[in-house]
Amino acid sequence: MRLLFLGDVVGRPGRQVVLDHLPRLREAWTLDFVVVNGENAAGGFGITEAIHDDLVEAGADVVTLGNHSFDQREALVFIERAPRLIRPANYPAGTPGRGAALVEARGGERVLVVNMMGRAFMDPMDDPFAAIDRELEAGPLGLVADAVIVDFHAETTSEKQAFGHWCDGRASLVIGTHTHVPTSDHRILPGGTAFMTDVGMCGCYDGVIGMDKEEPLRRFTRKIGSSRFEPAMGEGTLSGLAVETDGAGQAIKIAPVRIGGSLQPALPDFW
Amino acid sequence: MRLLFLGDVVGRPGRQVVLDHLPRLREAWTLDFVVVNGENAAGGFGITEAIHDDLVEAGADVVTLGNHSFDQREALVFIERAPRLIRPANYPAGTPGRGAALVEARGGERVLVVNMMGRAFMDPMDDPFAAIDRELEAGPLGLVADAVIVDFHAETTSEKQAFGHWCDGRASLVIGTHTHVPTSDHRILPGGTAFMTDVGMCGCYDGVIGMDKEEPLRRFTRKIGSSRFEPAMGEGTLSGLAVETDGAGQAIKIAPVRIGGSLQPALPDFW
Amino acid sequence: MRLLFLGDVVGRPGRQVVLDHLPRLREAWTLDFVVVNGENAAGGFGITEAIHDDLVEAGADVVTLGNHSFDQREALVFIERAPRLIRPANYPAGTPGRGAALVEARGGERVLVVNMMGRAFMDPMDDPFAAIDRELEAGPLGLVADAVIVDFHAETTSEKQAFGHWCDGRASLVIGTHTHVPTSDHRILPGGTAFMTDVGMCGCYDGVIGMDKEEPLRRFTRKIGSSRFEPAMGEGTLSGLAVETDGAGQAIKIAPVRIGGSLQPALPDFW
Amino acid sequence: MRLLFLGDVVGRPGRQVVLDHLPRLREAWTLDFVVVNGENAAGGFGITEAIHDDLVEAGADVVTLGNHSFDQREALVFIERAPRLIRPANYPAGTPGRGAALVEARGGERVLVVNMMGRAFMDPMDDPFAAIDRELEAGPLGLVADAVIVDFHAETTSEKQAFGHWCDGRASLVIGTHTHVPTSDHRILPGGTAFMTDVGMCGCYDGVIGMDKEEPLRRFTRKIGSSRFEPAMGEGTLSGLAVETDGAGQAIKIAPVRIGGSLQPALPDFW
Ligand SMILES: [Fe+2]
Ligand SMILES: [Fe+2]
Ligand SMILES: [Fe+2]
Ligand SMILES: [Fe+2]
Ligand SMILES: [Fe+2]
Ligand SMILES: [Fe+2]
Ligand SMILES: [Fe+2]
Ligand SMILES: [Fe+2]
Repeated sequence: MRLLFLGDVVGRPGRQVVLDHLPRLREAWTLDFVVVNGENAAGGFGITEAIHDDLVEAGADVVTLGNHSFDQREALVFIERAPRLIRPANYPAGTPGRGAALVEARGGERVLVVNMMGRAFMDPMDDPFAAIDRELEAGPLGLVADAVIVDFHAETTSEKQAFGHWCDGRASLVIGTHTHVPTSDHRILPGGTAFMTDVGMCGCYDGVIGMDKEEPLRRFTRKIGSSRFEPAMGEGTLSGLAVETDGAGQAIKIAPVRIGGSLQPALPDFW
Repeated sequence: MRLLFLGDVVGRPGRQVVLDHLPRLREAWTLDFVVVNGENAAGGFGITEAIHDDLVEAGADVVTLGNHSFDQREALVFIERAPRLIRPANYPAGTPGRGAALVEARGGERVLVVNMMGRAFMDPMDDPFAAIDRELEAGPLGLVADAVIVDFHAETTSEKQAFGHWCDGRASLVIGTHTHVPTSDHRILPGGTAFMTDVGMCGCYDGVIGMDKEEPLRRFTRKIGSSRFEPAMGEGTLSGLAVETDGAGQAIKIAPVRIGGSLQPALPDFW
Repeated sequence: MRLLFLGDVVGRPGRQVVLDHLPRLREAWTLDFVVVNGENAAGGFGITEAIHDDLVEAGADVVTLGNHSFDQREALVFIERAPRLIRPANYPAGTPGRGAALVEARGGERVLVVNMMGRAFMDPMDDPFAAIDRELEAGPLGLVADAVIVDFHAETTSEKQAFGHWCDGRASLVIGTHTHVPTSDHRILPGGTAFMTDVGMCGCYDGVIGMDKEEPLRRFTRKIGSSRFEPAMGEGTLSGLAVETDGAGQAIKIAPVRIGGSLQPALPDFW
Repeated sequence: MRLLFLGDVVGRPGRQVVLDHLPRLREAWTLDFVVVNGENAAGGFGITEAIHDDLVEAGADVVTLGNHSFDQREALVFIERAPRLIRPANYPAGTPGRGAALVEARGGERVLVVNMMGRAFMDPMDDPFAAIDRELEAGPLGLVADAVIVDFHAETTSEKQAFGHWCDGRASLVIGTHTHVPTSDHRILPGGTAFMTDVGMCGCYDGVIGMDKEEPLRRFTRKIGSSRFEPAMGEGTLSGLAVETDGAGQAIKIAPVRIGGSLQPALPDFW
């Protein structure tokens, strides 16, 4: 299967670059399954139903979230009727929405997508290592799912790499989100799981993690904020990862995708 | 000038890959100046004088450090007689060693190298933004220094990007270290400063930030450690950044360098 | 019932003051049940079997722990054969020992003791609020237990106070440990639960949280450690809380206990 | 001299209890100097000019602040014309206001008040240990100042105790603020400095650090907020510390002050 994962969509520049390119990529690369992290799609904070619908219409099979899941409070409601929208699985029991979705790909394959949040330097959620075990036992790769994609939304490289190793052989892809900067350590782990510490964001890189740089700089240097954070409004870069899996759901090819904006462009050479 | 920066050298695999390749690269690319972050060179924790000497002999003009600067206590002593070794400038006054060095390149140019530590999710040091202003005013690019290289040793992408913008136009290169994972957002900022959120490590990537994965996994999953951290002992990857500057010390070309080990190889196409 | 809780025993001065006074207090006050937090009893770090046995012999019905539970690795083993020793209940599944104990008091009453760890500014464990619900449903006050004592080992006043309110009416006592400083906000909450944000330590207060002050001062001022932490060796203060419960296990009287050392003495006036 | 320090005033219940009692205490105890921490006086967040004026009129010689100094943005302006209002001295250079004030007491004595912020688990400011050295050298006890009062606004007991020892002999009083819970470890350190880890708040203790308990509980248990924090509106407790100094500015008597609300009352027996 041909999988594409796109990182945290930040504000209008992020949405724009996804809406501009995803429909075309879907077709050009005959993608089987697309996951988009949408936790910052609405002005940098959370997601609205309208934006969610736009992302799905543009080609996202599943939209994942993170620590900003419910910044837009309407998400607490519409997530219940949005089968393609998931939030981290290790939120407390009773949290609206689900942390995993088993969704049918275009060709009929079943893809399990799990969203999970790390705990190092983040608001402490329940143990992501124990939680992913439960999810992967409920939807084992090769039995229940033809591919398994895990969005691990976490701050530190150490927790993300540990998480990748922990899942190795049980997922097709473990991909980090949240730092809004793509790493260049994409690789296939020994057990067959594609891994990348962070996929980066879809948004304007001429800022501070996608936000206009003035207010972050003010807070770092003066320790007193003076306004809200607003998305940086320059041209967005689409940042993602392309993974091809075999019949067993193991990753066999992997390549970063970067289109537009200010980062060095990258495209898979195998599609 | 042709500048090369190599990220945190971790343990023997990191030292090995640097010692194997740096002398050759120095010559093949006719490098003018090389900086190596050595904070994890001694078994993952700090640096010894012998290791420092090896790095310098292999071609490092300056060796920088970070939060692990003094894990090997001998560094508190020998740093005073090591003019090419610097530790973060925002340690408290009275800390052994210096936070910046003005060093002559092979061709006689003067290069100012500054090491600084971030504060977000790190042990709080003095304000790195105020401190870099002082350093850059003491050794202004174009007047005192023909090139200025800033190693910003920090955890979060936001503080690093803010720091890059803060220095833009006043340094030839602001490069992040500490996370041990290279990012693919290397670029030249509008003011002419080359920037990369993190340069990654020189070490074995089949582990957890360069350390053998067993103990980190144990701590993440069981919350009880059972042994010391040891470097992962697989083949090391050299991870760095190549920057070319013009006569004014502004960056004009930039490319990641990755050699050996398990990451996708990368070399500059302009040298 | 007459309950006494003694805070974190730190090193030899802490052990000494407990062993000196507890046997006498037990008799003089005809105490029904005594709980002692022993997480720092062994040189400031963890607990050994010999120390545990001493505390039990001196009159502790139950010994609780915290983030230092397993600093002495022998605790991983002997905790399995120590029915009066508990560690925080929200450690990962599979952790040696138990997080709660139902122990018979001298007069035959059953006392449920639960140990739990907070997450704010601490190593993230599983949700203590969900975990205490499970424990209190398994051993409800008035049905299974004649008294319920909860040691909430946490850093922040906010998480501790929230936890007290959360348990109010379901426990006889929710008492904070870990900061090593007694608070003077002991009170009985509206639902009948005795509460105190932190009970303080049994140890030498002429130091930094019970440790000799030199090394902590060095680390705060120089950001470089130079030796291990050692307990402060001046005279210890016993710091605890006295609570009297009614037949329903509700708290009806509460008073701090401070004996010896450098703090203002305090004794209950109702026994 | 007779000194009184009142802890963080939180919202209306905090203001009320201070305005109700301070004028009377001032007279009854013939107080020489009163300091009030006002960082939460305006609805729990910051301070307004009107509230500041009320506190001064009620008898505060100096009003100190903390991490919430500028939550009310008008404070950035009126602090410049409020000689009795200080904010932490270790804010970045250029921050409006001052971090210390030398103020004349009723009897003509000069009192130096310094406000400082800790860094452990707080937004990192400049080194408070180095900063207090500068302040105490500029206004040495016995030479420039007849009494020196240091409000150390910090989270952890360890940093506060270390800070107290650091200043011992150079200040009349080092008192902790910020946790909103009074500790019972008030004492005079060997060098003659009165010390208390935290003085507690002036506010309603039937809440979570002075705020209505519903929203904090929701965030701890559900990890999703649903409204702003609002002060708890029950009866406030005045929480402070009484210190008497000798002619050299050394502390000779110390006692906690707690009046009203739900904590155990306390008054000095020496005035
Ligand atoms: Fe994000
Ligand atoms: Fe995020
Ligand atoms: Fe490092
Ligand atoms: Fe580091
Ligand atoms: Fe403790
Ligand atoms: Fe503890
Ligand atoms: Fe406060
Ligand atoms: Fe505060």
